[in-house]
Amino acid sequence: MNEYSIKMATGDIFDVDADDTEAALMAATYCALCDHGYADLTIQKIGAEFEKSNSLLYHHYDGKDDLLVGFLEFVLDQFETDVPLEDVDDPWDRLERLLEHMLAPTLDDDRREFTEAMVELRAQAAHDPAYREAFTRHDRFFHEQLTATVREGIDRGRFGAVDPERVASLVQTTLVGAMTQRVTTDPEYGAARIDEVRRELLASLADRLLEDT
Amino acid sequence: MNEYSIKMATGDIFDVDADDTEAALMAATYCALCDHGYADLTIQKIGAEFEKSNSLLYHHYDGKDDLLVGFLEFVLDQFETDVPLEDVDDPWDRLERLLEHMLAPTLDDDRREFTEAMVELRAQAAHDPAYREAFTRHDRFFHEQLTATVREGIDRGRFGAVDPERVASLVQTTLVGAMTQRVTTDPEYGAARIDEVRRELLASLADRLLEDT
Repeated sequence: MNEYSIKMATGDIFDVDADDTEAALMAATYCALCDHGYADLTIQKIGAEFEKSNSLLYHHYDGKDDLLVGFLEFVLDQFETDVPLEDVDDPWDRLERLLEHMLAPTLDDDRREFTEAMVELRAQAAHDPAYREAFTRHDRFFHEQLTATVREGIDRGRFGAVDPERVASLVQTTLVGAMTQRVTTDPEYGAARIDEVRRELLASLADRLLEDT
Repeated sequence: MNEYSIKMATGDIFDVDADDTEAALMAATYCALCDHGYADLTIQKIGAEFEKSNSLLYHHYDGKDDLLVGFLEFVLDQFETDVPLEDVDDPWDRLERLLEHMLAPTLDDDRREFTEAMVELRAQAAHDPAYREAFTRHDRFFHEQLTATVREGIDRGRFGAVDPERVASLVQTTLVGAMTQRVTTDPEYGAARIDEVRRELLASLADRLLEDT
């Protein structure tokens, strides 16, 4: 639900060394997950996407959930390395750009398929502790990034005296909700709601955060 | 994710006529879903909770997903009949009470189990059109309720000139996100975030909606 989903969808993070077997396996997992979705995914279908020796696949991972939790960890490591929120200097512009991207009314097919898969994987966390641990780490990291952005805005005199952790929580939870609603309701209905969420959240954050200049 | 989940969890909606076979089957489905979760649920396990003739179960429903979609529709019909948002006269008090309930930092075991089951069912909508239709209807109804509450606040001079649909979308999407994060992250971590979301959303809505008096 973070920037990594963008990178995943555009394939950026899989521009990796062809000799890197783990990265190749993660790319195969990504393709199989987008093609089949969580419920229909089997470790055999991932194997079919994976052109290298299957010994890594069958000996290192104890079933599809073990591999998918490994995939979530891999994706998060990429996200932590990239720290995409630091690409834009002004903290407000950074928040605005993030929300405009994450809350775009529609997604292209690749981003939509990846979002569907992530929503299905997240739901596994309701009963599987390994998934829950991966998503907790994921949410914690993204929350810290958002908190740091808000704190930087305060320190630079751009934002007023808000509580950075509270603002970060509201933004993050809204993004989780939008990601979920987007792929679990009729696309046209979901697009209309997400368009409203983006406008209302940005207006509301502008009211709460921005110092009058 | 709506008020019905509260009613479900407290068992209110299943205080039905003992001769009502459909309601008894829905109660059995509810119990089986909370006990086993979506992934481990089978139509046989629902049958084990259902004390009446199993002919309804096996002849009327074409597998567990068909029954669960029927269950979602039943739950939503209860919700539409109850219209819980109209219990409190003042529109702001109504919103506040809703958010304090839905964004309570912790849930008792029954509400938590039901929330886990609903998050799992919602994820099915990523690939199953029947679930998607049920959740679209669900979200549409709840969004209309929230919109009507905001509009009433404007008409009564309690709220300023906001866009009721946009405000309703932000509230609803945040609630979907909170419900999802709550059961897909470490409980202590999730509780801390939801506590912040509740406080930030209420403060932000107060800023945006309430007319200075």
